[in-house]
Amino acid sequence: MKKHDQDFMKRQNRLTVFQIIKNEQPISRAAIAKQTGMSPTTVSRIVSELTEEGYVHETEEQASAGRGRKSSLIRLLDTAVISIGVELDRHQANIGFIDVQGNVLCSGNFPRSSGDTPEATVARIADIIEELILECDIDRRRIVGIGVGLPGIIDVEAGIVNFSVQLGWKNVQLAERLKELTGLQAVVDNELKVKALAEQLKGSAYGSNRTVLLGFGNGVGSALILEGEIYRGVTNSAGEIGHTTVDPEGMMCDCGKAGCLQTYINIPSLLSEASKIKPVRTIEELFAERRAGTRWACYLIDRALAYMAITINNVVSMYNPDSVILSGEILDKFPEVYEEITNLCYTQYIWEPLQDSFTIVRSKLHEHGVIIGSGLVAQDRYFQLN
Amino acid sequence: MKKHDQDFMKRQNRLTVFQIIKNEQPISRAAIAKQTGMSPTTVSRIVSELTEEGYVHETEEQASAGRGRKSSLIRLLDTAVISIGVELDRHQANIGFIDVQGNVLCSGNFPRSSGDTPEATVARIADIIEELILECDIDRRRIVGIGVGLPGIIDVEAGIVNFSVQLGWKNVQLAERLKELTGLQAVVDNELKVKALAEQLKGSAYGSNRTVLLGFGNGVGSALILEGEIYRGVTNSAGEIGHTTVDPEGMMCDCGKAGCLQTYINIPSLLSEASKIKPVRTIEELFAERRAGTRWACYLIDRALAYMAITINNVVSMYNPDSVILSGEILDKFPEVYEEITNLCYTQYIWEPLQDSFTIVRSKLHEHGVIIGSGLVAQDRYFQLN
Repeated sequence: MKKHDQDFMKRQNRLTVFQIIKNEQPISRAAIAKQTGMSPTTVSRIVSELTEEGYVHETEEQASAGRGRKSSLIRLLDTAVISIGVELDRHQANIGFIDVQGNVLCSGNFPRSSGDTPEATVARIADIIEELILECDIDRRRIVGIGVGLPGIIDVEAGIVNFSVQLGWKNVQLAERLKELTGLQAVVDNELKVKALAEQLKGSAYGSNRTVLLGFGNGVGSALILEGEIYRGVTNSAGEIGHTTVDPEGMMCDCGKAGCLQTYINIPSLLSEASKIKPVRTIEELFAERRAGTRWACYLIDRALAYMAITINNVVSMYNPDSVILSGEILDKFPEVYEEITNLCYTQYIWEPLQDSFTIVRSKLHEHGVIIGSGLVAQDRYFQLN
Repeated sequence: MKKHDQDFMKRQNRLTVFQIIKNEQPISRAAIAKQTGMSPTTVSRIVSELTEEGYVHETEEQASAGRGRKSSLIRLLDTAVISIGVELDRHQANIGFIDVQGNVLCSGNFPRSSGDTPEATVARIADIIEELILECDIDRRRIVGIGVGLPGIIDVEAGIVNFSVQLGWKNVQLAERLKELTGLQAVVDNELKVKALAEQLKGSAYGSNRTVLLGFGNGVGSALILEGEIYRGVTNSAGEIGHTTVDPEGMMCDCGKAGCLQTYINIPSLLSEASKIKPVRTIEELFAERRAGTRWACYLIDRALAYMAITINNVVSMYNPDSVILSGEILDKFPEVYEEITNLCYTQYIWEPLQDSFTIVRSKLHEHGVIIGSGLVAQDRYFQLN
């Protein structure tokens, strides 16, 4: 094996052992060796390293398999590692401190407007981080990095936002700027991709091998998690379903094409269509009109829900996942639509041969999904580099 | 490492070495070791085994890197292994003998009708195999197995055709029946999946890491090859785009839903629409009408080509591949549509941020793609098992 590959393997093994301890603690060295196929010597070496560095500790506990024999088990120190997860959206930024278990220790947010520059946003993030550290008494030495999730096409390796229609940004070296201002390693990723990872690691798709997360909110998107890894595609754009064409004779989309999926279901499109009849400023107002039985509001939302069911059919036909997670502002604010969409799926829109091949679940982490996911990605990056 | 995993690794290493020799011959043991990261001892052991078994041989040749020093290089015996590739379609079966390089040594076919039972089809395949062996003087001892590619949902592990609308089959234990009748190991797979693999191994997507093959013919489908492996999904149904909904108000599809993609572009749908105006029995007749400028034929085919471009956009948005291969009866018979579809893509239908992320290529293996791909899958299976 080449030197380069050896180093990579070492880091990868370290991360694997760490993640097994994280997910299955308390656990014995022998059980780790059995699960990973690593030699007992390798496992012991890694556990010793992690102990010295203060990430894990050893306890004298009853091993479940042994008959009364005491065996030493490994446990994680939950706050041994803390990362910062940041969600950047069109109108708001959410910031949270995430422990090794993906718990949110402390969080804050600030409003954004679509004209906000990257500089202003990064400066504001740095300020809020400082405020939260003081407010929640976070141990600074434990913070290993920042992860940012945002809507758009991201070059993860370079830490660059290639472009984000929703933030109005293009070619922004976000990771570098964040590092300059905070002194912390930063990683940037697509919001739905990290959210999907969070749901698969500790949310509604825990244990799934092929899960797809759908996000219905200001944008429309999807993310596929394949055996614990984000499926990225060649330019990290896999899952950008917002601009798949669902009706070539349909409405114009801001991308310059007609009949893109997002024109039927994202919040700005719904509000813009509704406002042709009456000024409707928020998605809450539109749902209130529907609840009041207003004809055009019922039509618009019914059509949106039908297209959401169609989206599920199309995504399932292409990715053939074992589960589909519904998430996003519309699902978070109006949980009743979950059942409506599911009914539409099974009564009308899912191709019959695939009806039993997957389950439809709701996001468990809701509005915390992106900060948890991006925080966990920052921790993974840290363990891979160190 | 567990015993089970060790065996798996051994078989996998053997297959890896074999494939490197296949693709890069003549090659030295040292070069194989360097490329795979295996130890020189492991590589030598595997090469010795393969030599003893008559798959490879050693030649005294000038190694390109050495300065005049002779070094012994390994070459494949092309006909050391022969497999049989079978393509089953609605109206026809194609059968070919495939060597290790994916060359078609000899081929034949027979017509099918949609009512043909699996028994009749399997018996006919066995007959043709015998005829071809005699006709082309194939060395029987070299035949290692049969691979079958057909349209439908296939349980590859069990060798069962779960169902195939085009063949009219349901729950057919095809691999077992073929083995009973021919005495050969048989493997069954989806036709587009093996065709995509063939194109990636020795066709138009050679060397691609993420390629999608689209098939436009009697059915509509796609297949994704990820780093040399078929992406199957949880029930081997990934890529079944024929029943993605592209217009919820569209035509009825035989699956019971409205507006499925295939109703706009597959040959039976095009002929059925055309025949509302005038009896049109073949796709050739329909294209002749278009060439003659007949209005409805122009409309139907223009619409089909637009939906093919839309399909490319939708597939690229979801899989984010580096290349898209266009294949199938329509492309094979009317190569002029390739340019029309490509133009539609770049002038109208591809989401702008993805326009430079992939190339569109034509299938190189054409109507031989499925027999080559299924033959190669049968060889892989053989090397994994032996």
